[in-house]
Amino acid sequence: MKIELLLTGNELMNGDVIDSNSSMIAQRLQQLGIDIHRKVTVGDHLDQLVEEMERLSRSADLLLVNGGLGPTRDDLTAEALARTLGVELVEHPDAMAHLTDWCARRGATLNAANLKQALLPAGVQVVPNPRGSAVGFRTRHNDCDIICTPGVPSELREMLNQTILPEIAGRVDDDQANLLSRFHCFGQGESSLQQWISNKLPDWPEELELGFRAGAPTLEVKVQGPARLADLHGEYVAKLRELIGDYVVAEDRDSLAGNLIALLKSQGKTLTCAESCTGGLIASMLTAEAGASAVFEAGFVTYSNAIKQQLLGVSAQALTEFGAVSDAVVRQMAEGALRVSGADYTIAVSGIAGPDGGSAEKPVGTVWLAWGDSERIDSACLYYPYARKLFQTMVAGAGLDLIRRRAAGISSEPRYLQERRPPATR
Amino acid sequence: MKIELLLTGNELMNGDVIDSNSSMIAQRLQQLGIDIHRKVTVGDHLDQLVEEMERLSRSADLLLVNGGLGPTRDDLTAEALARTLGVELVEHPDAMAHLTDWCARRGATLNAANLKQALLPAGVQVVPNPRGSAVGFRTRHNDCDIICTPGVPSELREMLNQTILPEIAGRVDDDQANLLSRFHCFGQGESSLQQWISNKLPDWPEELELGFRAGAPTLEVKVQGPARLADLHGEYVAKLRELIGDYVVAEDRDSLAGNLIALLKSQGKTLTCAESCTGGLIASMLTAEAGASAVFEAGFVTYSNAIKQQLLGVSAQALTEFGAVSDAVVRQMAEGALRVSGADYTIAVSGIAGPDGGSAEKPVGTVWLAWGDSERIDSACLYYPYARKLFQTMVAGAGLDLIRRRAAGISSEPRYLQERRPPATR
Repeated sequence: MKIELLLTGNELMNGDVIDSNSSMIAQRLQQLGIDIHRKVTVGDHLDQLVEEMERLSRSADLLLVNGGLGPTRDDLTAEALARTLGVELVEHPDAMAHLTDWCARRGATLNAANLKQALLPAGVQVVPNPRGSAVGFRTRHNDCDIICTPGVPSELREMLNQTILPEIAGRVDDDQANLLSRFHCFGQGESSLQQWISNKLPDWPEELELGFRAGAPTLEVKVQGPARLADLHGEYVAKLRELIGDYVVAEDRDSLAGNLIALLKSQGKTLTCAESCTGGLIASMLTAEAGASAVFEAGFVTYSNAIKQQLLGVSAQALTEFGAVSDAVVRQMAEGALRVSGADYTIAVSGIAGPDGGSAEKPVGTVWLAWGDSERIDSACLYYPYARKLFQTMVAGAGLDLIRRRAAGISSEPRYLQERRPPATR
Repeated sequence: MKIELLLTGNELMNGDVIDSNSSMIAQRLQQLGIDIHRKVTVGDHLDQLVEEMERLSRSADLLLVNGGLGPTRDDLTAEALARTLGVELVEHPDAMAHLTDWCARRGATLNAANLKQALLPAGVQVVPNPRGSAVGFRTRHNDCDIICTPGVPSELREMLNQTILPEIAGRVDDDQANLLSRFHCFGQGESSLQQWISNKLPDWPEELELGFRAGAPTLEVKVQGPARLADLHGEYVAKLRELIGDYVVAEDRDSLAGNLIALLKSQGKTLTCAESCTGGLIASMLTAEAGASAVFEAGFVTYSNAIKQQLLGVSAQALTEFGAVSDAVVRQMAEGALRVSGADYTIAVSGIAGPDGGSAEKPVGTVWLAWGDSERIDSACLYYPYARKLFQTMVAGAGLDLIRRRAAGISSEPRYLQERRPPATR
């Protein structure tokens, strides 16, 4: 089955937005064993849209069009499809019903801009959009199924899950179906992890694709193979889990923070955090997960020295003698957060996110972390010489990973505590 | 000047990699006033590459090909271009010299895989790659300049800076250059804002493109037009700013949080926040900006009732009588944060992020916000019936916007305080 994508939006052409929708579609199709055959991206230009709809529908079995369904006049997908099909735009009763309902649920009234979203090419069939005002729609042209989908990622995801993927799955041979296992790892680079796996599992079978995708703060490792090789797939996924298990912070659709919350919840334990350089990001990553309240009650963002003293009881002496980015201070932050919150576990971080504030001794990218419980607090100095936001993301990841290892009873020290030490301390 | 892109790589087709190269190219071209006209992405397939090189070179003035220059057998760009031109692959002396030098500097010897990178279509000209082993190369075909560039982002960036962009800049008429103004707005939907603008500025000139891009928490409004219409552009940007100015939270590359920090810094004021349902996101949005420490010293993530009482002095009576999501509690949180931190301004939020925890009276999506200073605290109840993370993002945006309005001395009330009230209170 040959699937092609047509993406539209000026924001995709001027660099304002990095297209992640096509990657989302591709990942989901991979699970069905299908690669996308071609992607074409054009701005909000009617002639180009018509040209590409016509051309791609001649080559593909299924053409997914993404974007351009919004209410504003630069949203041209419906008009372009109508012109491609040689039909008029007409008010579509299903789309109208959806819009009326959508507005009613929000206590809003339909305005002229919204009404545009009910104008669809004559004869198309509506594809439900449970999350947004713009319905999808589909038709057949040049022996090709054309499905137009919304550009808002959450709406696209829902439409893929509810309608498009089940239909494609039904059309794909079982033989073509894929098994996919995913591990999210923290603290290992792509090339070193790949090297490690090929050293330790030299007989890796050719039929199982081993893929890596670098993200922040985690690296994704994928094992993919045909469904007919389920036993072999299971065997090597188990071997891989055995090998890299301590670095696996989550599997499949789970996340580092979500998995940590589940672990702590199962132990009836709570966690607090005292953040300087991450400025609330650790708390935010935890509370982005549903159910966080079972394990997280209090977080402290102590950006200034005065607040570190006042809220967490950090001593003026430690701040003066060692500075805010020091072992002594970060330990006192961790202890203070534990004491004030009454939590079981604690994470504290203090570092130099940059771009300013570095020194020869403590360059931008240096961070002290402390983590533990009332019995034992550990600490380490790490070095992530990255741009500010990536630094914050990696430090937050390290904090969550270190407390995960403690809570899970992993006694071996992760390599990054050595590999990521600041240059001056190596 | 019509520029098109051809991107190649299986990793771009199966979702393993999100394409950021085309966004990098597009952003740099924007500075020259050029939008990319079309992007086509195909896997490592010779036939498809040849088909697209032929087709795109007929349409474009300049075709940038990205990727497929590596040493492995799935790197097919040189072969595809040779076939498109109808010439042979030959060992290119400049490429050979580059490779020899590149290996020598690394103390490595040329291997067979590397040698492949010196085989280029006969007659092409080499484009230097200061960072990697793969040289770029260029030719002319169908009245179009074709330049083949490496897929490694840092190598591409260098090649753009050193060779490609200066050349394009030299070829662009001053007349073609674009003027672009961008406003980031909070608290207005895309369709209602468009409606408002077309009602109030009905004589909007056709030559100025007015674009909208929905984001979270802000909506971007762009005005784009040719540089020769600079006066008209300036006039309508001023009219637009006059009309929607109170909703503009940042312009161009600035952000809501960054702009708020600059505003507070100019006033010598500081800000604190007390977060329940946003769980640190407000603090994190502020501290993601360089320079946050000048205005932000302390943030409180008070997720449980006990911590709200202990840290911020919220009264047990208010919690029992009105619940954690109430006017009384959120005001006490705002006051407590102000008192404890000694900051000038405060934001407090308490709401129901879901998916659980809602009731008929206070459904998921309900949030109370309080904001102000020691002289006056205001409060409001809003309703964002969205998925958890989007709810948190919009609430954080509302908090930052409300304190921005206060600090900027905007006295009129934003519409969303009415439009976003929970259904039960309307």
